[in-house]
Amino acid sequence: MEDNFKSDIIEGRNAVIEAFRSGKTVDKLCVLEGCKDGPINTIIREAKKHNVMIKFLKKERLDQLSVEGKHQGVIAYLAAYEYAQVEDILQNARDKGESPFVIILDGIEDPHNLGAIIRTANQAGAHGIIIPKRRAVGLTSTVARTSAGAINYTPVAKVTNIAQTIEELKKEGMWFVCADMDGEVMYNLDLKGSIGLVIGNEGEGVSRLVKDKCDFVASIPMKGDIDSLNASVAMGILSYEIVRQRML
Amino acid sequence: MEDNFKSDIIEGRNAVIEAFRSGKTVDKLCVLEGCKDGPINTIIREAKKHNVMIKFLKKERLDQLSVEGKHQGVIAYLAAYEYAQVEDILQNARDKGESPFVIILDGIEDPHNLGAIIRTANQAGAHGIIIPKRRAVGLTSTVARTSAGAINYTPVAKVTNIAQTIEELKKEGMWFVCADMDGEVMYNLDLKGSIGLVIGNEGEGVSRLVKDKCDFVASIPMKGDIDSLNASVAMGILSYEIVRQRML
Repeated sequence: MEDNFKSDIIEGRNAVIEAFRSGKTVDKLCVLEGCKDGPINTIIREAKKHNVMIKFLKKERLDQLSVEGKHQGVIAYLAAYEYAQVEDILQNARDKGESPFVIILDGIEDPHNLGAIIRTANQAGAHGIIIPKRRAVGLTSTVARTSAGAINYTPVAKVTNIAQTIEELKKEGMWFVCADMDGEVMYNLDLKGSIGLVIGNEGEGVSRLVKDKCDFVASIPMKGDIDSLNASVAMGILSYEIVRQRML
Repeated sequence: MEDNFKSDIIEGRNAVIEAFRSGKTVDKLCVLEGCKDGPINTIIREAKKHNVMIKFLKKERLDQLSVEGKHQGVIAYLAAYEYAQVEDILQNARDKGESPFVIILDGIEDPHNLGAIIRTANQAGAHGIIIPKRRAVGLTSTVARTSAGAINYTPVAKVTNIAQTIEELKKEGMWFVCADMDGEVMYNLDLKGSIGLVIGNEGEGVSRLVKDKCDFVASIPMKGDIDSLNASVAMGILSYEIVRQRML
């Protein structure tokens, strides 16, 4: 789920405090279970201030994750790229004079899928991507590489609660369609206008809570013998059905 | 390009001769440069008889590739799955009472892409996939895993010359469309009927020789800032435009 390149990892109390103070974007913080001294509390406070996901782990697990072998009870994972705000995505649409077209990822875990999705979003003319803080891969270096440069152009925002973000964007006049096998065949849906396309987790699909917020459920016709498509391929197929309808 | 699981590799003269004699499908043969004794000549003869790609390598490289450390100048890579014949693909279409829909891959090198393409081909109702013998990944165990089971249903045939195979299939009444950025936007093309969809290599696209054999060149609208899409995503988008038109 996470690809641990050395450049993405900061270990040790001073190094982690310095990362926060210098404004680096921390994706995830791992802290030794039960450790509550001054420096650790400072780090946890900084992490909470920046809404960073915190995991409390046993010493053996921290030792495994450590690359330099000197974690002192704390390891921080940095984002390889900076995250945008949801507002930046809407502004991107406004700047281009287009109705917003946003990709919402409800828990993509594989960095190769996220990279391919950013690449496809860029080519399909989507204005940005929204990912959740938890149970999902962030903008790691593998994601950046797999995006083939698209990560430099297409904004990716990270939010605490996908369902709540959808609610807020509905107030801006957006419609939401999620991909699920029990939906209406995508060719029969009207996917024009201000649209958010919701793609679920690789194994479990779109979560119930998020699906309930969507206006439509769209399905890709499945003529085969197996269960599903690769998540980045499914996203590409649905995105280009939206492109086709927008071009009509 | 190749994923070298132990189960896919046969090392040593007797083991490799035995693999050929027992009818195993060898994807690639690596032989020590300049080595011309009896057993090696027997192996090379068997490989040529079965149209297997042969690479002549220096001892250092063979030592690197060796898993067991006893290659005796020869290493064979087995296909994790059996290949079909082109005729099996056409028969598959006939059995279903459908016009043939075939995916032709002109040099896909990444096993994850090939796996995802087999998966998508199955779901899009394609009757089979044709890949070239050279400069392409074969049916390795990574491909099988990434196909999510589709490899058990969708036949994959391996041919010596893609351009020549296209020529032969044209005589059966098939049309060929290849994916390239300079083509006509796919939504404007008539992609119904007996069709072969040609997808090029990840870096270089469709080769000139193969492109010249195609009846149409189709492009996916690119609205982004980067060069291209991931090959398996592009294949998915084009395949489902064919599915859409077939459903009209």
